[in-house]
Amino acid sequence: MEKSSTYNYNVEPFTEDICGNLAWGNLGNLILRCASLHAGEHGFGYPQMIKLHHAWVLSRLVIEMESLPKTGEDFGIETWVDRLYRQFTDRHFSITRPDGTPYGHATSIWALIDTETRQPADLEQLPNGGFANVLIPERPSPITPMGRIRMKNAELVLTHKAAYSDLDINGHVNSIRYIELLLDYFSAELLREHPVHRIEMAYCLESYCGDTLEVYHDIDSKNANRHLFEIKCGEKVIVKGSVQL
Amino acid sequence: MEKSSTYNYNVEPFTEDICGNLAWGNLGNLILRCASLHAGEHGFGYPQMIKLHHAWVLSRLVIEMESLPKTGEDFGIETWVDRLYRQFTDRHFSITRPDGTPYGHATSIWALIDTETRQPADLEQLPNGGFANVLIPERPSPITPMGRIRMKNAELVLTHKAAYSDLDINGHVNSIRYIELLLDYFSAELLREHPVHRIEMAYCLESYCGDTLEVYHDIDSKNANRHLFEIKCGEKVIVKGSVQL
Repeated sequence: MEKSSTYNYNVEPFTEDICGNLAWGNLGNLILRCASLHAGEHGFGYPQMIKLHHAWVLSRLVIEMESLPKTGEDFGIETWVDRLYRQFTDRHFSITRPDGTPYGHATSIWALIDTETRQPADLEQLPNGGFANVLIPERPSPITPMGRIRMKNAELVLTHKAAYSDLDINGHVNSIRYIELLLDYFSAELLREHPVHRIEMAYCLESYCGDTLEVYHDIDSKNANRHLFEIKCGEKVIVKGSVQL
Repeated sequence: MEKSSTYNYNVEPFTEDICGNLAWGNLGNLILRCASLHAGEHGFGYPQMIKLHHAWVLSRLVIEMESLPKTGEDFGIETWVDRLYRQFTDRHFSITRPDGTPYGHATSIWALIDTETRQPADLEQLPNGGFANVLIPERPSPITPMGRIRMKNAELVLTHKAAYSDLDINGHVNSIRYIELLLDYFSAELLREHPVHRIEMAYCLESYCGDTLEVYHDIDSKNANRHLFEIKCGEKVIVKGSVQL
């Protein structure tokens, strides 16, 4: 079995943003789907792990796109894992045209949590020899890892009460919904003229139906195109992230 | 060419609701995609019509499901058109298991609008003889059409500022986002115990990025399981709908 897998998609109608590009939210969801499908093919998917009382938890997600596929265009998402370290594993993605050239890339960090004790599992003790035979150590992340989110003048810009349609199968607010909440800070006109280039997300805590999520915003003091965000529920930080135009 | 088309899908990870069923929002989007793909195959899709300065506008959408496909399950969406009348056309859908038995059905009403004059087009004057050779008059809607939405004691239950991630390629709030707003009235616990059976939507006016959408709720005086909704922007009614548990 190949160590990396490529999943092929097409930008179908009603999956685009206002510019006719695949919407970032839909791209983010496809990236998570490919992670899950690839893990499943190798015996470590959600259904397999939940039987062992474990669940994958997304800790970091960075997506960087030079451009996005448009309505009707075919694209592929290749995913692979390059390393394990302590309780974490790094999974990378390339989003490619049919000729193999990249639209962009993504990188993510995951932990495997014991659903009873909430403790992270030892990733070298997985069934069937674990990840050892899947790793591609010679293919590290194609993009730089997440930078620091240092907010100096955080301003509350949006409040959202987490509701039914935000939830995924775990009953938590879906990881990608947080990306959409950050994008909702921007006007449609601004994003039409200044497309999003890179999104960084650090997932700190889960939030639940009924939680009041407050989105705080600042500009990176070293890069005026890098918008910094924190999503809080009361005093708890749920997500930190950035959107670079 | 067959007059009806069936599109095959699988409930991939991260497309489910809290119960592991295909989420209603994702089902709704797939239904619209299939409408668009089928229209495209017959020469009347979005890209073909926009060249002729026309665009399809969804007027009504009713979805009724006995149950929903679950994580990993395959399902098909068959769609066909049974009639034209005045400026409208009726398009129907069956959501089926691989053995052909239905999970449920949907029905929709569409108008074709001249994008310059905003007037509805004569559907019998479409290029290539129009819809005439696509109609299946002997296959009317498999479900009852939309009932009345008569609200007596409308109560404001939710306010949402339309934002970037709500928009589709036309720059309007996406039709399915309104369904999600109605579902967001309910708690996750309630929908876990009382699954949604039927959703009815009447699309009256478009809304745009920055609009403040107010969701009003009432209970059908003749059916305590039928929740009635109106989404307004100021005094304008954007959507009327119902959710039956």
